[in-house]
Amino acid sequence: MRARHKPWADDYLKDNPDIVELNPSEYKGNWQHLKSGDKPIHLEIGSGKGQFIEGMANQHPDIHFVGMEVVKSIIVSAVEKVSEAGYSNITLINENAQDLSELFEDNEVDQIYLNFSDPWPKNRHEKRRLTYKTFLEQYYRILKSNGELVMKTDNKGLFEYSLESFSQYGCILEEVSLDLHQLQDPLNVMTEYEEKFSAKGQPIYRCRVRFPA
Amino acid sequence: MRARHKPWADDYLKDNPDIVELNPSEYKGNWQHLKSGDKPIHLEIGSGKGQFIEGMANQHPDIHFVGMEVVKSIIVSAVEKVSEAGYSNITLINENAQDLSELFEDNEVDQIYLNFSDPWPKNRHEKRRLTYKTFLEQYYRILKSNGELVMKTDNKGLFEYSLESFSQYGCILEEVSLDLHQLQDPLNVMTEYEEKFSAKGQPIYRCRVRFPA
Repeated sequence: MRARHKPWADDYLKDNPDIVELNPSEYKGNWQHLKSGDKPIHLEIGSGKGQFIEGMANQHPDIHFVGMEVVKSIIVSAVEKVSEAGYSNITLINENAQDLSELFEDNEVDQIYLNFSDPWPKNRHEKRRLTYKTFLEQYYRILKSNGELVMKTDNKGLFEYSLESFSQYGCILEEVSLDLHQLQDPLNVMTEYEEKFSAKGQPIYRCRVRFPA
Repeated sequence: MRARHKPWADDYLKDNPDIVELNPSEYKGNWQHLKSGDKPIHLEIGSGKGQFIEGMANQHPDIHFVGMEVVKSIIVSAVEKVSEAGYSNITLINENAQDLSELFEDNEVDQIYLNFSDPWPKNRHEKRRLTYKTFLEQYYRILKSNGELVMKTDNKGLFEYSLESFSQYGCILEEVSLDLHQLQDPLNVMTEYEEKFSAKGQPIYRCRVRFPA
């Protein structure tokens, strides 16, 4: 996702301490008590401009959503959106997925979402894909036993790769959809990408996988 | 697959004992020694008019292919095709997949192919799908340890269902392709259906799964 450099982004993130957690590693092991108010923790990795997490937070007030986005000039858009909506069950963090284990304790997260992650199509970039085994290892650690991950993408190659990778890691495919919008799932919350691609008639792929106990 | 009733079919099958095995259960436990001449056994379930098995037998002379087709008026077309081609590494049997365990001993088959199986789209017909768990249980039994199954279909619903079913049974997805012909796999042998559907530009799905040891 491209975004203009926003020199005011740092200040803007600091000015929204209710939404943005600038030192999230301080919550490690205590997200549920200190931050979520005893709600289950659902983590979106790559939350972009926040449309998905905002829709989910609206639909599920009993869940605390943590949105992780590495690009500062993009996460500010999510902060604006969440600020306007006024939800208290969202925390945004400007962090990298590689550092998950520094941010969450083992068994601390109830569910993970990967939405339209960068496909990194070149073979030599396989390790950067968010469904590469080293990432799955981290998800397995921070997820509760039998934790669930839901992935959506429009990228066929990434989806094929991810199904193989999940399976080879020992995850169980609970649900596979090769054309999500044909399903007309009334609970599906669309991301910005998803709206754009599905408007063009491109299929959206989704899978729901369960990690081993 | 529709086919006209062919009253001469019974006689025709009897007249081709080199290709058609009328009492295949007699070979149970001895396919490799008696029938295949010590070649690995690859089984296609639902071999239709035989285009796939003929192409595979041509490509892999060191493998013995067994084609199972339940519809008599269709299997005769396969017999004609194999008879003309003159391959000795094909056996056709006019049997039902439900009887697999009566035809093959445990650990007797090296590989299974499911090509364009009937999708049985209604929920109440789930048990008839060739990737329903009771069929997987039979495949697991007759396949060698870590045996492989390759499935192709143009049916999205059946493919989604099958990925879930394989995964939930404990199979590992070795390969998933959501548009086989974009891959341009030079070793892919097309079935009659596959030629027709891919000519229309419809995607063909393929997966290769490994059964648990």
